[in-house]
Amino acid sequence: MPELRKDPITGRWVIIATDRAKRPSDFVRDKVQIRGTSFCPFCYGNESKTPPEIMAYRSDGSARNTPGWTLRVVANKFPALGIEGSLNRQGEGLYDRMNGIGAHEVIIETPEHGQTLATLPPRRVEDVLWAYRDRMVDLKKDPRFRYMLIFKNHGEAAGASLEHTHSQLIALPVVPKSVLEEVGGAKEYYGFKERCVFCDSIRQELETRTRVVAENDLFIALSPFAPRFPFEMWIAPKRHVSSFEESQKNDFEQLAPILKDMLQRLDKVLEYPAFNYLIHTSPVQEAINDYYHWHLEIIPKLTKVAGFEWGTGFYINPTPPEESTKFLREAAVTTPAT
Amino acid sequence: MPELRKDPITGRWVIIATDRAKRPSDFVRDKVQIRGTSFCPFCYGNESKTPPEIMAYRSDGSARNTPGWTLRVVANKFPALGIEGSLNRQGEGLYDRMNGIGAHEVIIETPEHGQTLATLPPRRVEDVLWAYRDRMVDLKKDPRFRYMLIFKNHGEAAGASLEHTHSQLIALPVVPKSVLEEVGGAKEYYGFKERCVFCDSIRQELETRTRVVAENDLFIALSPFAPRFPFEMWIAPKRHVSSFEESQKNDFEQLAPILKDMLQRLDKVLEYPAFNYLIHTSPVQEAINDYYHWHLEIIPKLTKVAGFEWGTGFYINPTPPEESTKFLREAAVTTPAT
Repeated sequence: MPELRKDPITGRWVIIATDRAKRPSDFVRDKVQIRGTSFCPFCYGNESKTPPEIMAYRSDGSARNTPGWTLRVVANKFPALGIEGSLNRQGEGLYDRMNGIGAHEVIIETPEHGQTLATLPPRRVEDVLWAYRDRMVDLKKDPRFRYMLIFKNHGEAAGASLEHTHSQLIALPVVPKSVLEEVGGAKEYYGFKERCVFCDSIRQELETRTRVVAENDLFIALSPFAPRFPFEMWIAPKRHVSSFEESQKNDFEQLAPILKDMLQRLDKVLEYPAFNYLIHTSPVQEAINDYYHWHLEIIPKLTKVAGFEWGTGFYINPTPPEESTKFLREAAVTTPAT
Repeated sequence: MPELRKDPITGRWVIIATDRAKRPSDFVRDKVQIRGTSFCPFCYGNESKTPPEIMAYRSDGSARNTPGWTLRVVANKFPALGIEGSLNRQGEGLYDRMNGIGAHEVIIETPEHGQTLATLPPRRVEDVLWAYRDRMVDLKKDPRFRYMLIFKNHGEAAGASLEHTHSQLIALPVVPKSVLEEVGGAKEYYGFKERCVFCDSIRQELETRTRVVAENDLFIALSPFAPRFPFEMWIAPKRHVSSFEESQKNDFEQLAPILKDMLQRLDKVLEYPAFNYLIHTSPVQEAINDYYHWHLEIIPKLTKVAGFEWGTGFYINPTPPEESTKFLREAAVTTPAT
């Protein structure tokens, strides 16, 4: 009998197929391979082919927009939103529109074309996290922005148009719907219990341990109770932290290795799948609070979203999280984090 | 400058790229082709390879589960939900689960393997609509079900696992999230204006006519103001009808040709794209009301849903609906509906 499970934060139901659970080998898909065959604007020497750099980490004193960087942030050449101008909110009969104001930046995580976050040294992954934080802190100063989303599309099937490993940041003039749903659900729970729903959930996971993939002193990596997608994973701080940008040095020192570890496990279990990840953090205007808890969601691209999902907003997940947890646990690659 | 547009029903924002609008030829994709090369359980003579038929249209007096039908409804062989049992709602600490009770049926639209809804005679498309209605009316009698979703996955990229043209019906024990959002938004609008937001929107579209693709006496086909996807289309009754199952003979006589017409135009403009469609109707327990208006949403599968969409619930649509409307209007195939 399939099972309906309710996400404790948003109230979204998912259908978990328990009878014929799909194993990793059941998912037909293309392996993400780095071919390096075409021109890459993110490699050394091609700095002039991207918009000018917004920020870079350089330890060798090299000049802006030249090689020598270890991480580089530039504006997206084909931005989804424009940085200049005002919102100019307008009505059109019963419709509402405004200018698509926002920032759209690309974090080029390494100059090395053949690397991924799963293969970079943890210290370099830490730099990526610092870059996320630095850019968020800077963009928060712009009063037009209500939310900053960090995300990563890895592999063509997951929407990546360039194979050189990179993340993206989009600053938005409105709080996105998914975040409003999570924040709303978390507030409601807090109003009822005076506890953070994420903290309660993490506490329960640490007790039952059927969905914990790995942990270290500060972070937990788990399969959520009601995941939309097979092998979906979340990484969250164990203690209550509402915003990603509050993270400090010791946080990133522990987040970097667990993130790298999870991506290595994914590569091992699912043979280099395409995936997305994204960071959900509190909206700018309520950055520090007792109800919301930042986390990173990893979504391997294994299934197709079809008519049922578009029509309902529900998801059919053919792999129970308890099963995916087992596979991911067994795939500990180097020194396991648990 | 890109534009942010708000869906008047759900309040969801979409980002419409207005500068470099993508034309039909910009979307790289595989043409949906009917190959007919492998064994098909939906063809004549293979009736025993599906679960027994729930209903069929037969004008020749042929026996159940034998050839002779023109349309056939069977249970899905690999159902997402199970029909037998009780919900058995349970808690597990802070989590909620219940048995995945529901119906999952397949409407085999024609015995002819090479046809699609775009190529079938309008009279046969009408039969498909009658089958939708008949099954919904029957399943509404089961007190466990709160919602019936009709949907179609056309082409492998849109999630179809069999190429023989078919639709699906899933009866759910809960009202899906997307429907709750639409019904909630519509109720709120009604509370404020005492008018149906869909009726108001249709009235405005008929005045401005920049997003009307086609119409006949009873139905309108339009590109919504804030579509999530390029070339997304909606078909809705012009007069206020809250539930699809209320439709009568004269409704289906006009809905069938406009639906066929829209799918023909899609095939022409986008060269046989994969697509999903789905019917949004009022929940079972509030079938007839003044605020919700049933409609059919057609979603061609042209873009990839990636990290930004998963993280925000917002969509980036590279083709303004006014542009897609122009292409779809020009693609009138036979006798145009306008």
